[in-house]
Amino acid sequence: MSNQAIQDYYPDQLSYCYGCGRLNEHGLQIKSYWQGDEVVCHFTPKPYHTAIPGYVYGGLIASLIDCHSTGSAAAALARAKNINLEVEAAPRFVTASLKVDYLRPTPLGPPLELRAHIVEIKERKVVVQTTLSANGEICAKGEVVAVLMPENLVKDP
Amino acid sequence: MSNQAIQDYYPDQLSYCYGCGRLNEHGLQIKSYWQGDEVVCHFTPKPYHTAIPGYVYGGLIASLIDCHSTGSAAAALARAKNINLEVEAAPRFVTASLKVDYLRPTPLGPPLELRAHIVEIKERKVVVQTTLSANGEICAKGEVVAVLMPENLVKDP
Repeated sequence: MSNQAIQDYYPDQLSYCYGCGRLNEHGLQIKSYWQGDEVVCHFTPKPYHTAIPGYVYGGLIASLIDCHSTGSAAAALARAKNINLEVEAAPRFVTASLKVDYLRPTPLGPPLELRAHIVEIKERKVVVQTTLSANGEICAKGEVVAVLMPENLVKDP
Repeated sequence: MSNQAIQDYYPDQLSYCYGCGRLNEHGLQIKSYWQGDEVVCHFTPKPYHTAIPGYVYGGLIASLIDCHSTGSAAAALARAKNINLEVEAAPRFVTASLKVDYLRPTPLGPPLELRAHIVEIKERKVVVQTTLSANGEICAKGEVVAVLMPENLVKDP
C-alpha cells in the first residue's frame, strides 16, 4: 500500500466517516500513507476552519489527529499481520481515548502535516502518538488509544 | 446571563470559531447556558456527522467538548469575578489540552447533551470536566485545561 492511502482499503460500508471516509462527501476525507516507520497525512484547512482569526480550530486538529491515528493503527496492524490489502479489507479501529496537547497556536493557511508513530501494538489495541506541524514547527501533539471495532457495531447494509 | 449563551457575549472579532462562533456561518454555532452550577449545551448532529454508520463522529464529540468547555471556563471566570456581561465582554479561553474518553458508541440522531463541571478556577486557567450524553446515557467524558487567551494573539480588525 505504499502508493495508496490506508483509508482507500476500508470496506465501503465503513467509508462514511466524517474525518476519513472517502464516501462522505461533506467530510474531510483525509489520507494517510506510510513513510518508513511513520504514517503521514497532509491536510489544508478551509478558511472557515478557524478558532481565533488567523489560527486553526482546535476541534479540527483533534479530528485530524483522531482519524489519522486510527488509520495508522489499521495500517500498522495490517503490516504486522502481513495482510495483503489488495485482497483483504483493512482492519478498522475506533477510538477509546484521545488526548491532545496544544503547544502553540496553529497558523491557518499552510498545509498541516501529521506524523504518526506506533507506540504499542496488540491484536485488538494499538497506541499511536501523532504530531501536527505547520511550516515545519510542531503545534500539537496527540495520543490515541485505538481499539479494533467490535463486529456487532456494523449494521448490514 | 441566565437566558443568554456565553458565546453571545464574546466580542465580534472573537466570534468566528468553527465550533462556537455565532458569526461563522459554516460552523457548529454551539450555545452554552448555566444550569445551577453546571453549564449545559444541546446539539443535534447532522446526518453526515457520522463515524461508523449509525454513530456520531468522534472528532465532532471532541469538538463539542472542546468548545463547550472553553465556553464554560469563560462563564465561570465571569461569574467568579462578578463581571457584568451586559457591559463588559466575556473573557475568552483557548485550549491547552483536551482529553476525551469514548465510553460507548454515541447514537446518531437524538440531540446530544453536554454538561460541564468546573473543577479548578484560577485567574488565567480553568479546568473543566464535561460529559456528553445521548438518550440520557453518558457516551463520552472529557477534560479540558483552558487558559485565558494571550492578548497578543488577537490581530486588530
